[in-house]
Amino acid sequence: MAFIPAELIAKKKSGAAHSAEEIQWIVNAFTSGELPDYQMSAWAMAVCFQGMNGDEVAVFTAAMRDSGKKFSFSHLNAPRIDKHSTGGVGDKTSLIIGPLMAAAEVYTPMIAGRGLGHTGGTLDKLESIPGFRVHLSRDEFSRLVQEKHFALMGQTADICPADRKLYSLRDVTATIDSIPLICGSIMSKKLSEDLTGLVLDVKFGNGAFMRTLEDAENLATWLKKTGDNNGVKTHALLTNMNSPLGRFSGNACEIEECLAIMRNEKFIDGDTDYFADTRELSLQLTAHGLYLGKKAASVEDGYKLAEQLLESGAAYKKFIELCKYQGPSDIDHLPKAKHSKTITSPASGTLHEIDTKQLGLSLVELGAGRKVSADPVDYSAGLEMQVKLGQSIERGQPFMRIFGENESRVKEAARMASSAFILSMSSPTKVLPLVAKVIT
Amino acid sequence: MAFIPAELIAKKKSGAAHSAEEIQWIVNAFTSGELPDYQMSAWAMAVCFQGMNGDEVAVFTAAMRDSGKKFSFSHLNAPRIDKHSTGGVGDKTSLIIGPLMAAAEVYTPMIAGRGLGHTGGTLDKLESIPGFRVHLSRDEFSRLVQEKHFALMGQTADICPADRKLYSLRDVTATIDSIPLICGSIMSKKLSEDLTGLVLDVKFGNGAFMRTLEDAENLATWLKKTGDNNGVKTHALLTNMNSPLGRFSGNACEIEECLAIMRNEKFIDGDTDYFADTRELSLQLTAHGLYLGKKAASVEDGYKLAEQLLESGAAYKKFIELCKYQGPSDIDHLPKAKHSKTITSPASGTLHEIDTKQLGLSLVELGAGRKVSADPVDYSAGLEMQVKLGQSIERGQPFMRIFGENESRVKEAARMASSAFILSMSSPTKVLPLVAKVIT
Repeated sequence: MAFIPAELIAKKKSGAAHSAEEIQWIVNAFTSGELPDYQMSAWAMAVCFQGMNGDEVAVFTAAMRDSGKKFSFSHLNAPRIDKHSTGGVGDKTSLIIGPLMAAAEVYTPMIAGRGLGHTGGTLDKLESIPGFRVHLSRDEFSRLVQEKHFALMGQTADICPADRKLYSLRDVTATIDSIPLICGSIMSKKLSEDLTGLVLDVKFGNGAFMRTLEDAENLATWLKKTGDNNGVKTHALLTNMNSPLGRFSGNACEIEECLAIMRNEKFIDGDTDYFADTRELSLQLTAHGLYLGKKAASVEDGYKLAEQLLESGAAYKKFIELCKYQGPSDIDHLPKAKHSKTITSPASGTLHEIDTKQLGLSLVELGAGRKVSADPVDYSAGLEMQVKLGQSIERGQPFMRIFGENESRVKEAARMASSAFILSMSSPTKVLPLVAKVIT
Repeated sequence: MAFIPAELIAKKKSGAAHSAEEIQWIVNAFTSGELPDYQMSAWAMAVCFQGMNGDEVAVFTAAMRDSGKKFSFSHLNAPRIDKHSTGGVGDKTSLIIGPLMAAAEVYTPMIAGRGLGHTGGTLDKLESIPGFRVHLSRDEFSRLVQEKHFALMGQTADICPADRKLYSLRDVTATIDSIPLICGSIMSKKLSEDLTGLVLDVKFGNGAFMRTLEDAENLATWLKKTGDNNGVKTHALLTNMNSPLGRFSGNACEIEECLAIMRNEKFIDGDTDYFADTRELSLQLTAHGLYLGKKAASVEDGYKLAEQLLESGAAYKKFIELCKYQGPSDIDHLPKAKHSKTITSPASGTLHEIDTKQLGLSLVELGAGRKVSADPVDYSAGLEMQVKLGQSIERGQPFMRIFGENESRVKEAARMASSAFILSMSSPTKVLPLVAKVIT
């Protein structure tokens, strides 16, 4: 059945709900090119103002999933679990969670992304390992998941083409920040993986796309509902992105942090372990994955199992294995930065706020991320946090170190990053917990 | 200065006001093609939700005017007045007002339109006169206004190209019903005529684009403000479109009605003159035009002068002259319909409501209007009202007569039109006045 596009746009504009047939037609006609960009962008803007209800989002997400090729893992007769993060700075947990899940023999097909805006991307981090292959064929990916339990690839042109096309359009028409559209975009890709369970890391704070805990919780609720409605049991953790996660943010440096954590190393500076939050968040997210993957009777048991697999070195072994079968790649020759610059505090006080998005943008300026998708990446570039939120700071004390292969970019990034630290002269600063809420 | 389109869209989406430079850039970049349709439609949708303030609308309108060629009449050293109607069914007053203004020697450059949706267009009506030319060059139009005081032409590709392009886009993206965008579209064309004064006929009711008096008043207030802000003194009349205006609606039949009125003829049926409302509205609108054109010290004096010029036959003479210089055209051989069908009342009662839009759509079905812009027009086709709102009706009494050259289309239009009459069995019906409000 064909619809008149202007009437569908008018319907959404008026606040009415679409029928399933209408939503399916919109997604399919847009993908085929029958519904032109100028009508789709007007519709997307109407959705930004009027929203969609749960039924609409479920149909919208399923239609986007069905616009392309889907994986099928049902012949495995076992749970398939993935983790998805809404993105942040220093957000490297996939690199630990994947090996942990594989060590527990839970099938973990992971379709990962590139850096987006001020946030980093798992694919870029892995590509800092010389020889690492993220461009797998669908067949190789399926085979590796079956044989090795864990494989990782980028979205291809034939997975959710509706989402690829719509995302590009939303990016240039100021229609990104719509919960139903975000929900459809994230979940359509996840649903194409033929999962039985999904763990969501929904970030809030000044380095996340959702600035407040409330917005993040709203998004998490929608994502969970959409997953559950489509047969994928979904847990969501609302986690703190008011500072970068862990000690290092960049590409190769994040791989090194994860390898160290999987080797049970700490990074003690003063009385703080700067690897602790990366380790803890990875364990908590894995705990939910192991529970959904039926390897643990409860999330608490899942946590214990994850901790044990990390401490025994099983996850480290799996990561090394991954570097072989998605390689061969050379973990011993990660790129090293040639230049570095340390930013010190201009005054004494309490570290009241870190503008995490500003740090992410400094990383883009540095070359650790991209301004446009064709930009080359400096895999050696990154930043090292030397302070924690709420900490007492002395004048002249180092805030952070910025490093990379290009001296002038290091300087420029350091200049940008230096404005990201806000000191308070008086009151102590309330710091929100790493995991603020869990929705199961 | 260049802007980032997505940031401008996001700004409007957030409800903020644009700077003059931003609005000018949007209009100019859209006209040149630098700003693509898919971003313009998203922006237009954001405007539908967030509106624009008076300063934004004034700049937007001026930028659309400045996107093309403008007329210059300042060398005449005398007022230039036009009338604009927001459109309705049987709305033929321009055909009387123009000649009346010319008879009073007020310069009246009139850029008129085609039928739009269910409404008729002055250009189509005039083209029903064999030989009448509405495609004038800009030079001929200017010369005729100077020599004859009154000329009439259609919008050309070089007048307000931004509006032409934006209107086409709005039409297919459900972004028509935004007061600031409507205001910009109407007023940019009027401002390009280099007017000193403008009389607006803003219609309300079930045959108008604004259904309620309140919406019409809101639009009228914006139109007036935009005109006044751009140096065109603007009066607005809020007029009733809850039934077709006058006895006839169509093309040639409306020309005949106007000729009859300018010959001081009435159309008495029962105790009603069915030409009275067309005549009265034309006189009232002209009264404002003559006042703004400095031929009358007050609107009341303008009305007296208009009445005198109508009754003396001066307006009729001017219309005949118009048909020569925008011809030669043959007023004595207007097309005659070959087939006709009368719709009678299925019951007795009070005529409670006439679905005027439905009658307009019946006229389109009949061929008096167009479904798509390339459709040929049956100039002989039309309808004749034989009842008035609020009137007592007997079973079997004729409601109206439908006529045209094609018998099956006459039948189909009659079938459509027959559902437009709603009788009330009980209470008397309140009929709003022809002119509900005047804004000066």
